[in-house]
Amino acid sequence: MALVVQKYGGSSVENAERVKRVAERIVATRKAGNDVVVVVSAMGDTTDELLDLAAEITPVPDPRELDMLVSSGERISMAVLAMAIDNLGFQARSYTGSQAGVITTSAHGDARIIDVTPGRIRTAIDEGYITIVQGFQGISQDTKDITTLGRGGSDTTAVALAAALEADVCEIYTDVDGVYTADPRIVPNAKHIQNITFEETLEMAACGAKILHLRSVEYARRYNMPLHVRSSYSNKTGTMVAGYMEDLTVEQALISGVAHDRSEAKITLTNVPDKPGAAAAIFQIIADNEIDIDMIVQNVATAGNGHTDISFSLPKKDGHTATAALKKAKDRVGFEKVIYDEHIGKVSLIGAGMRSHPGVTATFCRALAEAGVNIEIISTSEIRISVVCRDTELDTAVRAVHDAFELGGDEEAVVYAGTGR
Amino acid sequence: MALVVQKYGGSSVENAERVKRVAERIVATRKAGNDVVVVVSAMGDTTDELLDLAAEITPVPDPRELDMLVSSGERISMAVLAMAIDNLGFQARSYTGSQAGVITTSAHGDARIIDVTPGRIRTAIDEGYITIVQGFQGISQDTKDITTLGRGGSDTTAVALAAALEADVCEIYTDVDGVYTADPRIVPNAKHIQNITFEETLEMAACGAKILHLRSVEYARRYNMPLHVRSSYSNKTGTMVAGYMEDLTVEQALISGVAHDRSEAKITLTNVPDKPGAAAAIFQIIADNEIDIDMIVQNVATAGNGHTDISFSLPKKDGHTATAALKKAKDRVGFEKVIYDEHIGKVSLIGAGMRSHPGVTATFCRALAEAGVNIEIISTSEIRISVVCRDTELDTAVRAVHDAFELGGDEEAVVYAGTGR
Repeated sequence: MALVVQKYGGSSVENAERVKRVAERIVATRKAGNDVVVVVSAMGDTTDELLDLAAEITPVPDPRELDMLVSSGERISMAVLAMAIDNLGFQARSYTGSQAGVITTSAHGDARIIDVTPGRIRTAIDEGYITIVQGFQGISQDTKDITTLGRGGSDTTAVALAAALEADVCEIYTDVDGVYTADPRIVPNAKHIQNITFEETLEMAACGAKILHLRSVEYARRYNMPLHVRSSYSNKTGTMVAGYMEDLTVEQALISGVAHDRSEAKITLTNVPDKPGAAAAIFQIIADNEIDIDMIVQNVATAGNGHTDISFSLPKKDGHTATAALKKAKDRVGFEKVIYDEHIGKVSLIGAGMRSHPGVTATFCRALAEAGVNIEIISTSEIRISVVCRDTELDTAVRAVHDAFELGGDEEAVVYAGTGR
Repeated sequence: MALVVQKYGGSSVENAERVKRVAERIVATRKAGNDVVVVVSAMGDTTDELLDLAAEITPVPDPRELDMLVSSGERISMAVLAMAIDNLGFQARSYTGSQAGVITTSAHGDARIIDVTPGRIRTAIDEGYITIVQGFQGISQDTKDITTLGRGGSDTTAVALAAALEADVCEIYTDVDGVYTADPRIVPNAKHIQNITFEETLEMAACGAKILHLRSVEYARRYNMPLHVRSSYSNKTGTMVAGYMEDLTVEQALISGVAHDRSEAKITLTNVPDKPGAAAAIFQIIADNEIDIDMIVQNVATAGNGHTDISFSLPKKDGHTATAALKKAKDRVGFEKVIYDEHIGKVSLIGAGMRSHPGVTATFCRALAEAGVNIEIISTSEIRISVVCRDTELDTAVRAVHDAFELGGDEEAVVYAGTGR
């Protein structure tokens, strides 16, 4: 008898009808001879509705109380899911993050899991219950307060719980049937990926692929917990995220796929003094505002005037804060202008096979050139190449790279509507 | 510095605007130099909406999961109330029933409080927080599961917590400004009651007055916790429920008021054998169906035929079950017919002064006779007289009794719209 942890996102349980369908799927897994532990997100737009309510009360809600408020969303979904399973003649029990032993830091709204002590869940499994655990939520180690885990929190709950229970697999149900070589809405013949390593999946997630959240994949990699990403609307096998890159043979190492990202902006500072400490001063200002920057380019100082331009990309949502902070420091740092540009896109090629195949960068750049896409920033890692271009050219760039590496299949990919959480 | 426990019902916090007004009232109490602990019900119709959701999933929801579900209602209201207080510049913290140490039986949906161990609440008070506790909800002693307390549960939470914290007073905020000598919608000059004993309030609640729930008053009587019943829409002093009947002097003991009840029905069994065990068999059938009966009348057997009629009143909601169960037992018990009558009303006169004033029953019956109201069943206790009449005559009966005992004031009572929970 295997132990399967299943995670269902908000769109999979957005109304009573869908909750019943998820219940049937859970019962089917059980009937197939498995122990089942389920992690569930809040129903549909519940979380947004709760945030709207908080906004009606105060523009800056207390973080502790906001966690108390929004955690009620997953409480509702897990209770009704347990009822629906019960109604099918199987015994189900729901548990809060606290009851399930999900111990976190006390950073309200963005808590990290410190430990999972699933004693009650273990007992419930042994007593034959299908157990349901509230996603996205835990209890702080120091203050014993309710915390939430931030974006992608339910995925992280599922993976952490699966690791603590030594489950055989953690199934992540979403509205697509796995990871594709590119977004099928942009590349119609994008191919379904059957197997991919943790590291490649991490790079995909970091480069804008929306299937899995970075933190949950990091957790899976740390505990070597295989993730099966699959659709809650079909029984098709999804994508298996498992294994480490270092264990791949040269033959297994491939180019996995193309990711893209429209969520970033670019800031360019002109005529920065080309002397030690100038770049450090700039990035200290960004760090002081708790902004994560992604790619950085510093041009060589031209024609001996002792000045250079520095460009970097950052999340659009932080654009205003960064621009304002930099303008304030203009005279102190000694640059000329802050240029803010929201109209950029980023295309990335990811694959463990890159390490052993020279010439990938050349092929990548040639494909973009032939498609007429101008490269503004380029950065590489061991298994990734990323390029910033105009946002209007992003779709063309994705298709050009996908074609150049012959990633496409013979069939058109099936895309489902809806969004996960 | 006094410690005040305040309880706000669902209509007092039904939207963001009202939540903010409640927050202002709490802050005002704090500014007046008091420590404040607040117990809050779910916002407006939240509980009904959650029950509707459960009904969409299954006709018979698992009781444990139903408690998990509906307890999210109070969780939402307490979190937003804490935010609203925080927004006024005061520090507030919300706590679940479990965090507040509300230990209950495991009877889901109708749990009783076994103990309150408010260590965290005490600490929060000492640290200067306005603390908010989730009403209606606790944690079961045996199974550590989430439980709810049933109707009037938030009142009970407030009183039990006030007792455990040895608070100076427990204020129950509702949509009327206290207890009246009769329902002002029926008796326009009904007088506001300033002081009333626990026992009289219990009799009022048991006889249909909807201000306070029976269980919370029982709790207050047991722990001698004064209750101040007041309106959340005005600053008027409400009704103080405090003190025991036995401590009243003859001068203090008065007729308190007239209560009425439209929620009961009457069952009459005709031609019951007038022999030992017949009544016992009948009431055993009722008890086996867990139905509480209220008043009972058995006529003297007439004209030597060895048979009698038995009538009793019971909640309308149990009418169908009782009738069906009795019909099934007809031959075994040996009566002739079951007559079910929903068109009854009950009027009750309550007052500690009844004990020391002979003739109250006579005055009561004469008032009804003069108003043309026919008495169908009559029952009395030490401090109460109750009579069942036609429901169409109930308003007339209430006014007649209220007048006969000169309970009215000079002014018209002010009645607010809305309902409490």
